[in-house]
Amino acid sequence: MPNISQRALKMPASPIRKLVPYALAAKQKGIKVYHLNIGQPDIETPKAALEELKNIHLKVLEYALSEGNLDYRKALEKYYQGLGFKDITVDNFIVTNGGSEALNFALSTLCDEGDEIIVPEPYYANYNGFSRHIKVNVVAIPSSIETGFALPSIEAFEEKITDKTKAILICNPGNPTGYLYTKEELRKLADIALKHDIVIISDEVYREYVYDGEKQCSMLSFPKLSEHCIVIDSESKRYSMCGVRIGFMVTRSKLIKDAAMKFAQARLSPVLIGQIIAAKAHQDDEAYITSVREEYTKRRNLLVKLLNEIPGVRCPMPKGAFYCMVELPVDDAEKFAQWLLESYHHNQETIMVAPAGGFYSNPELGKHQVRMAYVLKEEDLRRSVEILKNALAEYQNK
Amino acid sequence: MPNISQRALKMPASPIRKLVPYALAAKQKGIKVYHLNIGQPDIETPKAALEELKNIHLKVLEYALSEGNLDYRKALEKYYQGLGFKDITVDNFIVTNGGSEALNFALSTLCDEGDEIIVPEPYYANYNGFSRHIKVNVVAIPSSIETGFALPSIEAFEEKITDKTKAILICNPGNPTGYLYTKEELRKLADIALKHDIVIISDEVYREYVYDGEKQCSMLSFPKLSEHCIVIDSESKRYSMCGVRIGFMVTRSKLIKDAAMKFAQARLSPVLIGQIIAAKAHQDDEAYITSVREEYTKRRNLLVKLLNEIPGVRCPMPKGAFYCMVELPVDDAEKFAQWLLESYHHNQETIMVAPAGGFYSNPELGKHQVRMAYVLKEEDLRRSVEILKNALAEYQNK
Repeated sequence: MPNISQRALKMPASPIRKLVPYALAAKQKGIKVYHLNIGQPDIETPKAALEELKNIHLKVLEYALSEGNLDYRKALEKYYQGLGFKDITVDNFIVTNGGSEALNFALSTLCDEGDEIIVPEPYYANYNGFSRHIKVNVVAIPSSIETGFALPSIEAFEEKITDKTKAILICNPGNPTGYLYTKEELRKLADIALKHDIVIISDEVYREYVYDGEKQCSMLSFPKLSEHCIVIDSESKRYSMCGVRIGFMVTRSKLIKDAAMKFAQARLSPVLIGQIIAAKAHQDDEAYITSVREEYTKRRNLLVKLLNEIPGVRCPMPKGAFYCMVELPVDDAEKFAQWLLESYHHNQETIMVAPAGGFYSNPELGKHQVRMAYVLKEEDLRRSVEILKNALAEYQNK
Repeated sequence: MPNISQRALKMPASPIRKLVPYALAAKQKGIKVYHLNIGQPDIETPKAALEELKNIHLKVLEYALSEGNLDYRKALEKYYQGLGFKDITVDNFIVTNGGSEALNFALSTLCDEGDEIIVPEPYYANYNGFSRHIKVNVVAIPSSIETGFALPSIEAFEEKITDKTKAILICNPGNPTGYLYTKEELRKLADIALKHDIVIISDEVYREYVYDGEKQCSMLSFPKLSEHCIVIDSESKRYSMCGVRIGFMVTRSKLIKDAAMKFAQARLSPVLIGQIIAAKAHQDDEAYITSVREEYTKRRNLLVKLLNEIPGVRCPMPKGAFYCMVELPVDDAEKFAQWLLESYHHNQETIMVAPAGGFYSNPELGKHQVRMAYVLKEEDLRRSVEILKNALAEYQNK
């Protein structure tokens, strides 16, 4: 048998995707599965974007520019200038195959194998995958469900910095915790980055979905960080178009952009059609974003309230994104999640959740937690919690 | 200034893309540029695929399965069974963001940093990029324009095998040479792979475009290689839909597929829309493929004939794909290619070609060669050669 690389052997299986075969098997048995496991909203893609598909009259679906086509980057320029960043232009973007590729380019540009990035945990599980792919080590800063995932003092980041550290990676608002960084916290992070000459990679793909009247503060708000900041962005969650695979990186640093462009050129081109319809979505999106934000607010409020009503379940209130971390009274959340699909149903229905182990550098820390995405309508969330409640009772009595 | 990785610093700039700024500048001066530099055909995408865009009535453009959606993989199964590989099913594919990502997954699955892959040169320049990204070394087997890029004896491959060698990577038919491997050559490669327990990665994205009545032999023709073969494929060239970014890898090896799936899961999803329209394109494509093959045949015959008529120019006849390697009577093909865009025009028109240095492990070997893609209609090819002829006369008299 041929050699399989250590790179592949050590890649963590995606905690979000590894239960998929069990879900497919459940569906084949006629069981309805409510998907709380993945950030795939049931929210409709903007109508203008969907209609635009019918207006594509190209005769050749040709390569886009490696950095993304100008029309789309102009739409991004307008959007970022609208956010208040008047110096951001078409030249500050590299369009990518989803936010995933933007993150790959950012890490590849800054890190060699054995280098380190500092990441507050729990964190988006695929940060592990992207890092392992190029043999970069994630150094975690712990936060805990007991304190609602409040960050430790920003100084804790500084203690982790070594000569291997090339970047601090944050997700704001955070997947999976919904944590929203204050401007003061970000300012301190910026100071640390400058002091140690490292880069802040700020994943802001959930920027629009922040609740209770709060507003996300972008890492681009600190011009002094011009050479030390990469923002990761994506249309996937903003417009519920995860399948178009359009993300991008934003940086004021020409040094970083020019280096990242080499990776962009090697893979030739981001997706053409996604750029066309995402540009259309940006044209007039205020009503859409507002209504989706209201919808997520209602869902969040309902889900968190219902979860906390179950004895032994704890779920802090997230401030943004559309996930919550939930502590469950089970011995092993991964086993429980598999059992829900393999061995349980309540009137031919069950739920799929993401075991939280994969969101921690040490999976033991998430052993009693799952991540739930409130990407289903209220009625489905209500039913999902009912299923969970019944399942927990049965699981505990096994 | 922050650290830029050795990974990025050592990434070769794409020889195909690095002249792009000069081309844009020429266009801004009102000069028409004939693009012979990139495999972007002017051939129209199949009408059925373009029409299918108007029939997408999804309300949510959601994630596809990490391995690709079942409907599309069913279309691929039918296509591969039609090629004669009756044992290939939906389970043998991983759908990717273009052939580029399939190659990245293949290399990542087999190689750690410092490992080696053996590649006949000249080779597709981005093989360098993909390898460098994960710090894998390309070991070249030379072929030369003097012998029409005939391969050296297959035994030459064996001489390069070390304990670091994890794969032999071939492109069949070849970009940039148009070389078509015989079944006998492939059988010998298969024997070597088995003997040394290494994998053949066979890039077959130009499979349909083989001329003079010949037929491409897929590496899948050797069932004994079931655990030692990965085929890279893509819809980009087959259907002139480079911008949809749909490629895939095919392997009979469950070991390899399962390992590669971890990379596929980490980046979540290939493009949804491209899968839908590519599946449609596969439904009834015989007339399309035949007519495109005829068109490329005419273009090839014309271009190669006209080029060889220019004194000092040499261009072997390619057997497949849609590129030819051309030796030019110039001191430095890269300088010449830049000069064509920066300082030359013939009646306000010029041409863009790909300097061949980037297609060799040692750029010096390609110093007097360029790659031309016959992706333009005959009239434009005729005009391009006329411009080249005049430009060469002027360049030589500088």
